[in-house]
Amino acid sequence: MDDLAPADDFADLAYNVFSKRCPSRSTLEHVTGRWGALTLGALHEGTFRFNELRRRVDGVSEKMLSQTLHALERDGLVHRDAQPTNPPRVDYRLTPLGHEIAERLLTLIHFVEARQDDVQKAQERYDEARGTL
Amino acid sequence: MDDLAPADDFADLAYNVFSKRCPSRSTLEHVTGRWGALTLGALHEGTFRFNELRRRVDGVSEKMLSQTLHALERDGLVHRDAQPTNPPRVDYRLTPLGHEIAERLLTLIHFVEARQDDVQKAQERYDEARGTL
Repeated sequence: MDDLAPADDFADLAYNVFSKRCPSRSTLEHVTGRWGALTLGALHEGTFRFNELRRRVDGVSEKMLSQTLHALERDGLVHRDAQPTNPPRVDYRLTPLGHEIAERLLTLIHFVEARQDDVQKAQERYDEARGTL
Repeated sequence: MDDLAPADDFADLAYNVFSKRCPSRSTLEHVTGRWGALTLGALHEGTFRFNELRRRVDGVSEKMLSQTLHALERDGLVHRDAQPTNPPRVDYRLTPLGHEIAERLLTLIHFVEARQDDVQKAQERYDEARGTL
């Protein structure tokens, strides 16, 4: 990373998501992206087949779920287990690293859910102050 | 939320990001979106003026930062403080709720940065196995 950032800026960090060229930024985007976050959160509950996962991640299209799973598999966060049966059975589950990331993500998700009432009150105050309600 | 989900599905949760109609999903998207996450992470360090923040969140356009700040302000996570000076001075800082969310987000961000080496090794293995290197 020495070529990506001046040493005096964040010499103590190997990677820094605030730098646009740091590869950790795209990892963060896979993890926190709309479907990435929900897919990791769902897989924290266990092993899923593709269509089970699609039902769990309400609203995701087949194409987007497939792209999301490929990116997370490539990052080493999701394990794809294809059984040589007919028809083939494919299971998805978190890797140990994926599990560690999903835990931290779920801490954030549960906090956001728990404080959604406060967020909505803030939105109402904001809209009222601007006369858009 | 009773009208958004069957009671037997997640009766113990007021809000659930896995349901596509739950308003907590859009809050999560503001918080974890590409620029939302970096803006909250940057503001965890203190108060910033717009252009300072734009330099800190490397790669963000003026338009995207402005949209991001408005969404976070409406959600009650960012406080916008406009001083009636000439030229006007506008400072941005986290609200207490924004601070609590940013803390959990930074736990995730720092973990992703710390494990980026493992992610890159996984990506190399994935690409080698598929002959794309």
